[in-house]
Amino acid sequence: MKHDMTRLVLAADIAGTFLFAMEGAGTALRGDLDLIGILVLAFVTALGGGIIRDVLLGTMPASIRDWHYAATALLGGGVVFLLHRDVQTIAPQAILIMDAAGLGLFAVAGAAKALEFGVHPLIAILLGGVTGVGGGTASDVLLAQVPRVLRVDIYATAALFGAAVMVLGIKLKGNRTALAVAGAVCCFILRIVSVWQHWNLPTGH
Amino acid sequence: MKHDMTRLVLAADIAGTFLFAMEGAGTALRGDLDLIGILVLAFVTALGGGIIRDVLLGTMPASIRDWHYAATALLGGGVVFLLHRDVQTIAPQAILIMDAAGLGLFAVAGAAKALEFGVHPLIAILLGGVTGVGGGTASDVLLAQVPRVLRVDIYATAALFGAAVMVLGIKLKGNRTALAVAGAVCCFILRIVSVWQHWNLPTGH
Amino acid sequence: MKHDMTRLVLAADIAGTFLFAMEGAGTALRGDLDLIGILVLAFVTALGGGIIRDVLLGTMPASIRDWHYAATALLGGGVVFLLHRDVQTIAPQAILIMDAAGLGLFAVAGAAKALEFGVHPLIAILLGGVTGVGGGTASDVLLAQVPRVLRVDIYATAALFGAAVMVLGIKLKGNRTALAVAGAVCCFILRIVSVWQHWNLPTGH
Repeated sequence: MKHDMTRLVLAADIAGTFLFAMEGAGTALRGDLDLIGILVLAFVTALGGGIIRDVLLGTMPASIRDWHYAATALLGGGVVFLLHRDVQTIAPQAILIMDAAGLGLFAVAGAAKALEFGVHPLIAILLGGVTGVGGGTASDVLLAQVPRVLRVDIYATAALFGAAVMVLGIKLKGNRTALAVAGAVCCFILRIVSVWQHWNLPTGH
Repeated sequence: MKHDMTRLVLAADIAGTFLFAMEGAGTALRGDLDLIGILVLAFVTALGGGIIRDVLLGTMPASIRDWHYAATALLGGGVVFLLHRDVQTIAPQAILIMDAAGLGLFAVAGAAKALEFGVHPLIAILLGGVTGVGGGTASDVLLAQVPRVLRVDIYATAALFGAAVMVLGIKLKGNRTALAVAGAVCCFILRIVSVWQHWNLPTGH
Repeated sequence: MKHDMTRLVLAADIAGTFLFAMEGAGTALRGDLDLIGILVLAFVTALGGGIIRDVLLGTMPASIRDWHYAATALLGGGVVFLLHRDVQTIAPQAILIMDAAGLGLFAVAGAAKALEFGVHPLIAILLGGVTGVGGGTASDVLLAQVPRVLRVDIYATAALFGAAVMVLGIKLKGNRTALAVAGAVCCFILRIVSVWQHWNLPTGH
């Protein structure tokens, strides 16, 4: 039973990595990069958030320790490079739904790992957000653009919200597995609803 | 007595974090970011330099270990977001003076922490400079701009000068506390005088 | 004999650092930076790749541990600042050849260090590539440009190829020293031939 759970989490993690890698490669394709650039953006988008989190926690990043992550990210980038005409026919709604699911998964997994290292709940929530959006932010920096996540959309906010639901629930002695699911679902719903309703955060003006 | 000293250093550190966070948030406001963007730039500007230093020293960043830093930075960002009309009425001279004081403090504190890890004096001086200017540099990168500190002004130079005064004094067996104060004051004075006299470093042309 | 070998590797490493620093400073000169900016770009270009590798491996970067690297990088930057008219008269072919040699050296040294930390061969090859091109990439980011290495040329590819030759050879129980030389030579030749033949990687279009 426990074994099945671990396998499920790993499968979800690999699926999220593959999806984010494909998104990063898609951005690279539109940005006039070559094959290496596409693979680098796939890698950075998929694994950058977790790498930043692990470096800040002072531990060797999971994607350095276990080669399956890098292989998955490079595979995702390679698929987009080879099949980009087919990839472009995927409905935007499908991409949005898969991306929101990946965001919820990364945010919750990131916050959970931070808690294991004994950091304060506030820091765990922030590191959950970093895990969710750090890769896309680093990709935008490589493309010399102001990261989209800092300008528009409820995206980092959804990641932080999902991480906060889980972390605060755990502090209130709730069931960890149930709270991880609840956090990911909260992130997912907030993200989907915010796109559907065209929500944005206020700017200073 | 020792206890009072520690408390004073912590208070100065928190004050510097709050000030740098407000400056980062102000830059974000002018750069058309949303609330998350403003808070991220507040965080990065205030804590980025220390984070880079600690990652290079191989230790968990102080701002991950102790949640007060993150809370202070987010508070500084939030204040600017809510009160930006009032914040804009602060005289530029007051901002310059407070910023120069924060720079001196960060440079000296950063170099002192590096020395504790047993690095060579040259490296300690460089890491003092990184602590002082790393956050602003990272913020400029997020805004897709060539960091101001690499182009104009005596700013990184002042941080390196202050760190050098302290580190070289300690190598000559001077009193640590006196040298920390002297280093911060040297950085502060060089920064203020250079603005007043419109000093710049030479370019290659 | 062993001693001579170690000395030779160290000399090559310092020579590569000096060369990459001069190239970084040259880019900074053309980018309208001041003296600090030139020295920072010299430092980042020369040492950034190794720093990223070491941070990912969870060890204090060699350039923080040993001050000779920083001193060499700053010296390289200073030489370009002072003698840039003379430096500009160096034939582009000479720069290309030296740069390709430095790239091969960094890629092989980076992959070898990664193997020492027990990572998977795929990760060691990737970290060899990062060591070779990470500094130039970070410099381009500081100059707010999309890194050249992601867009054109067989450059990262050559670094990855050289690292792969060495890592795969070692996995096949080959002689380490011979394979390090072979890897560096393979990187060098691929780089030189690709420039001569105007090879580029495919883009997605």
